[in-house]
Amino acid sequence: MAESSLSAQGLPRTAGLLGGGAIGAGWAARFLMQGVDVSLYDPDPNAERNVAEVLESSRRAWRKLTMIPLPLEGRFAMAATAEEAVEGADFVQESAPEREDLKRELLARASRIAGPNVVLASSTSGLLPSNLQLDMAHPERLVVGHPFNPVYLLPLVEVCGGKLTAPEAVERAEAVYRSMGMSPLRVRKETPGFIADRLLEALWREALWLVKDGIATTAEVDDAIRLGPGLRWSVMGTFLIYRMAGGEGGMRHFMAQFGPTLQWPWSKLTDVPELDESLLDKIVAQSDEQAAGQSVRDLERFRDDCLVAVLQGLRSHGAGAGAVLAEHERELFEVAHARAMRDGDDLSRPLRLHSQRIPAEWVDFNGHVNESRCLQVLADASDAFIRYLGVDAAYLAGGCSYFTAETHLSFDVSTQVLAGDEKRLHLYHRLERPIDGAVLAESETMLLHVDTRHGKVAPAGAGVAEHVRQVAEAHSHLPRPERAGRRIGDRGN
Amino acid sequence: MAESSLSAQGLPRTAGLLGGGAIGAGWAARFLMQGVDVSLYDPDPNAERNVAEVLESSRRAWRKLTMIPLPLEGRFAMAATAEEAVEGADFVQESAPEREDLKRELLARASRIAGPNVVLASSTSGLLPSNLQLDMAHPERLVVGHPFNPVYLLPLVEVCGGKLTAPEAVERAEAVYRSMGMSPLRVRKETPGFIADRLLEALWREALWLVKDGIATTAEVDDAIRLGPGLRWSVMGTFLIYRMAGGEGGMRHFMAQFGPTLQWPWSKLTDVPELDESLLDKIVAQSDEQAAGQSVRDLERFRDDCLVAVLQGLRSHGAGAGAVLAEHERELFEVAHARAMRDGDDLSRPLRLHSQRIPAEWVDFNGHVNESRCLQVLADASDAFIRYLGVDAAYLAGGCSYFTAETHLSFDVSTQVLAGDEKRLHLYHRLERPIDGAVLAESETMLLHVDTRHGKVAPAGAGVAEHVRQVAEAHSHLPRPERAGRRIGDRGN
Repeated sequence: MAESSLSAQGLPRTAGLLGGGAIGAGWAARFLMQGVDVSLYDPDPNAERNVAEVLESSRRAWRKLTMIPLPLEGRFAMAATAEEAVEGADFVQESAPEREDLKRELLARASRIAGPNVVLASSTSGLLPSNLQLDMAHPERLVVGHPFNPVYLLPLVEVCGGKLTAPEAVERAEAVYRSMGMSPLRVRKETPGFIADRLLEALWREALWLVKDGIATTAEVDDAIRLGPGLRWSVMGTFLIYRMAGGEGGMRHFMAQFGPTLQWPWSKLTDVPELDESLLDKIVAQSDEQAAGQSVRDLERFRDDCLVAVLQGLRSHGAGAGAVLAEHERELFEVAHARAMRDGDDLSRPLRLHSQRIPAEWVDFNGHVNESRCLQVLADASDAFIRYLGVDAAYLAGGCSYFTAETHLSFDVSTQVLAGDEKRLHLYHRLERPIDGAVLAESETMLLHVDTRHGKVAPAGAGVAEHVRQVAEAHSHLPRPERAGRRIGDRGN
Repeated sequence: MAESSLSAQGLPRTAGLLGGGAIGAGWAARFLMQGVDVSLYDPDPNAERNVAEVLESSRRAWRKLTMIPLPLEGRFAMAATAEEAVEGADFVQESAPEREDLKRELLARASRIAGPNVVLASSTSGLLPSNLQLDMAHPERLVVGHPFNPVYLLPLVEVCGGKLTAPEAVERAEAVYRSMGMSPLRVRKETPGFIADRLLEALWREALWLVKDGIATTAEVDDAIRLGPGLRWSVMGTFLIYRMAGGEGGMRHFMAQFGPTLQWPWSKLTDVPELDESLLDKIVAQSDEQAAGQSVRDLERFRDDCLVAVLQGLRSHGAGAGAVLAEHERELFEVAHARAMRDGDDLSRPLRLHSQRIPAEWVDFNGHVNESRCLQVLADASDAFIRYLGVDAAYLAGGCSYFTAETHLSFDVSTQVLAGDEKRLHLYHRLERPIDGAVLAESETMLLHVDTRHGKVAPAGAGVAEHVRQVAEAHSHLPRPERAGRRIGDRGN
């Protein structure tokens, strides 16, 4: 297949989405926030509202998750038919209910409309792509791209082709997903349930037995996960965790020691619990009690807030999903930087590398969590400014970087350079509330350019130093912030 | 049973531990760091070294995890026999290899030595307490207390009594675990594998099939967990997660929609994979590749660093294991505060509410992660000082608190009060390296006392204001820190 409408990074211009439930709406949010236009078909009259709500949740989560400027949001349109959604799209993602007949029909219709070389991906969590592609006009372009809820936050997407799928289609889908900050996991052999859902189903089945047999309530099963093994699973999978249990003898020692327990009667593995009315009632009642009156939206917000905190924690150690996020941020920064370079920068006012993504939730600076997050944002802003100056991965590999010498943070509260020379960068950040431009916080920071090989302050490289000089000269005409240079304890507004 | 040697908080003075492998050493670390003396028996000549290493890992993790002063560490001694370990102990925890005969014999021996009313807990992950207690002198005092690795970080401990167990013994064990910051999960019916291990085994069995059948490698199975479902499981268990998938229809709608997929052929549930040489070789080779030369200790440190970050993220939202941690920190603070009140405070020098737990890893202040963490520590120090002043939960409930007005943070770098009146608190914190007292960072912070009901600055309550006055007066005789009141950009050391 020839390269066509995909950008260099693999990002399509327009995505045609079939289905706007939890998964379809999550896809819409991920595409839109990466700057991709979306045309979505769903016969459910609630679909448009659902997409709007999920998109708002996604915006809220990403505002907290990263300070890297996101692309200008794509445009969203509801399509009246599947054909209209697919017409002109560079990539198609089907997220209809998990019924093979329904999916086959939708994909067949879409395949007759889709442009040449357009890949059609199905979000199925377990149906075989070899079956889904049977009625399609171009079966070689069908892949499975199975995401996880919330699609706009979790990086995992399982990718699997069917018997008739062209290898290029699988690669194309992976490039699209990767360009949106996801981590495609290629399934080596087509199999019902792929990888993750087989694991999920095995655990779920066992959880149902535990509740049915009165050994635990739904809340207790959940505690058994989130207070123990589930904490570890955000960091490492089960194989690496068990490897550690083998000590210095490694995996073979672990298997010798714990392998035999597999034969123990620890699960109801030979059967599936019957979902009769009595079990259903029990689960529903316990789940209602567990939710304690919180709405689905309440729960989703709480989940997202926690996921954001977990992702940020993992990012600080380059672990798992945090490493995927960090890589995506680097790419987004390159894009934003290239755009700024192309459009030309207005140096007559403070730089706005970050101001557009300040979360309203940070207005209330009460307690250390908010305070430290605020500094993190401001430090991120310094970071972005330094990258904006041209300090990229290659520059860092050369052994030089900027280190923070001092930070002065004011709490009532764009990037203004107060002073800069070849060694020093004196920055002034303001946190502004997007809705009305109110200044929520200001931060003054002095950075020193350091030679990391020799561990001492050293002049910046010629290109960077010149960039500092240009911006500092331009910003020298700006009014000096009233609070700059304040001492602690000075009276002020 | 009468109350005897357990403290008001449920913490024993001395714990007798049987077994010093990964779990036993983890227990030793948890007991010791809570101030409990430990006597441990393990015939393995490597046990003592193993305990020392795990204890060091635990100290390292807790230094990062919390700034609340931990109790003075308990004393550790190796015992030559099981009897010696149990003699004089207030609580016994058995963590021998997972063999029923071995555990039964050890517990029987221990039960003949253990003092009256001493509870004996077994760390078994799946053996039935009703069997373990059969040969014991006091079977009514046997409970299962099944923890999860790393025992010093994960809060979950499953608690289960056998047919002969007294309800008081179960309650006693839960009080002991709770006093150490753990979250006991009472198993409602005795069953092999209890709750968590049935879930773990179900997932593990499925994971083995995936590798055996060549659908995924060990690393790919791990990615399928940590980049998707595993991220969610650190926040919420499977029931609450699925509830959200049911949308506003809740759990019943979810079950109606997804219940039938249980009947799909998505797993190898009817059989257990045979662990023949070929499968073992495959798993071992893939696991070695996945570990990429990292030692078990490397992996453990990485796991602990990530777990600490995840726990801190969850703490900031009061979620799951983060909520358990926050509650434990409140209790630890009360204990530390009571101790300080009892011992009298030396106000002639900066207060050392926090100085003993500064992690050496924070010396290198390069990049925003370290910077924001540093501020978090210093903000925690302000927090602790405010609580030290007597601003407790009841005080906060009255509608008043301190809010940060300004923070000034210096990066080369006890609590010294520079000034304080009924409305203002001007604090100076220094980060010191415990090993040599070197000052790693200093922070100057101005706090204002706020009436949260009216959202404005207001005088502190009489008791707090008097406490401020006392400390400020005492500290007014201290030398003023050289960097206090510095402006950004001033030349200095």
